[in-house]
Amino acid sequence: MTTDPSLLSNPRSERVRQVAALGRRAARDKQGRFLVEGPQAVRELLGYAAPAAVVLYVTDAAEQRHTEIVEAARTAGVPVHACTDQVLAAMADTDHPQGMLAVARRVDVPLAEALDAVGEGFAVVLTHVRDPGNAGTVLRGADAFGAAAVLVSDASVDVYNPKVVRSTVGSLFHLPVTVGTPVAELLAACRDRGIRLLAADGSGSTTLPEVDLSGPHAWVMGNEAWGLEPEVLDLCDETVAIPIQRAESLNLAMAATVCLHASGSAR
Amino acid sequence: MTTDPSLLSNPRSERVRQVAALGRRAARDKQGRFLVEGPQAVRELLGYAAPAAVVLYVTDAAEQRHTEIVEAARTAGVPVHACTDQVLAAMADTDHPQGMLAVARRVDVPLAEALDAVGEGFAVVLTHVRDPGNAGTVLRGADAFGAAAVLVSDASVDVYNPKVVRSTVGSLFHLPVTVGTPVAELLAACRDRGIRLLAADGSGSTTLPEVDLSGPHAWVMGNEAWGLEPEVLDLCDETVAIPIQRAESLNLAMAATVCLHASGSAR
Repeated sequence: MTTDPSLLSNPRSERVRQVAALGRRAARDKQGRFLVEGPQAVRELLGYAAPAAVVLYVTDAAEQRHTEIVEAARTAGVPVHACTDQVLAAMADTDHPQGMLAVARRVDVPLAEALDAVGEGFAVVLTHVRDPGNAGTVLRGADAFGAAAVLVSDASVDVYNPKVVRSTVGSLFHLPVTVGTPVAELLAACRDRGIRLLAADGSGSTTLPEVDLSGPHAWVMGNEAWGLEPEVLDLCDETVAIPIQRAESLNLAMAATVCLHASGSAR
Repeated sequence: MTTDPSLLSNPRSERVRQVAALGRRAARDKQGRFLVEGPQAVRELLGYAAPAAVVLYVTDAAEQRHTEIVEAARTAGVPVHACTDQVLAAMADTDHPQGMLAVARRVDVPLAEALDAVGEGFAVVLTHVRDPGNAGTVLRGADAFGAAAVLVSDASVDVYNPKVVRSTVGSLFHLPVTVGTPVAELLAACRDRGIRLLAADGSGSTTLPEVDLSGPHAWVMGNEAWGLEPEVLDLCDETVAIPIQRAESLNLAMAATVCLHASGSAR
């Protein structure tokens, strides 16, 4: 072992409790920190947002399996603590943290910085999205298809929820994400920058193939169950429907995937 | 109450046990029946596949809320049994069956019938797909974007798994689904019919925008973790990658959504 010789072995220690508390939003908000679980997510954290990494906890087996990740942490000056399986399990939100877990500082950026990043590109706005898996899929799709930023309203799931972090598979660290702005303010700020607002909603009179996606624009995605509120639709430039043949409607993750893919393909 | 006056109130009765057993694959395979939970799924069952409906269990509150569904069941000659919340909860796989649950006979069709349905259209092949939510999303996407059939290999998740049935939101009843054929046989049968086989795989040398989707074709989607096996790739006509900018890779549900949307849009 080349890690800290003081192996953490007490799953009931104060340190373990503090890390485990990050599974809850109140503790994340208070500490300004969140959990990054599993080798893949930790690798992306260190590769794209190393200054945000606070500390890495790793089991002996995981250190041997992922020496390059542990080395990357040390190179970045991130303290590495060896711990037992029991300690890691007690800290983690997931049942399978695969022997590795980092604590990171928040990585979101101010709204203005996210809007600067959009430039001539495209972004996605999430409002009242509540399911962590859906939010994660939207972040992943934004990343995959080349969105410039993700703008999350105050009334949405916490992007630092461990389930969101896991389901983004690192995308949270790849592109600017801003959080916590009320949706009306978020949309007004987009308009001020000349970012065309496209509400993704089955009720839309415009269909996806008809929309001009060449200029700066943002897809506005709403709640899983009830979609976008009328007040939000009113603030958008167009309401766009994805043409479908038969199913009731697409779920949020499917709709976002199709819209973001269309925007990426238009460039 | 206009339903059977003998309200089912014993959650430990033999009948309740038999219905609850359908949460397990062995019982589904033995009985040739499966669970259809919640008003939305029951509505689609009765609307698209009423002859497959065996019996409907409904609480008093749900009957009052969804009189049209209960009427549809009676019109179709499906026995309706009133039951208590406790009985419904004991029968259901989900924690929230919303007061209504049907038992249905399998709705899959023979392979030849599914292939007949393809004609000049397109289909999707699932092989080694293991996650019920993913299989459900693929079925839903196939339905939404106008696929003619879904062909599920023997080594995939059971489409009658209650989690699959729930996540399809009725799509399971909207288009022909065939199950249980070994993947090599499935692909050979497609080729015999002149259905072009497109393997969806990040390793593909052809990209999605380059593929001709005008003729009959089938998207072949593989396992969530390891993708398509080399033997399967060899049996396909082309391996097609979705161009992405940054994220590691798309998950199965996202990739299937994009591919099926592209096929639907090409028509």
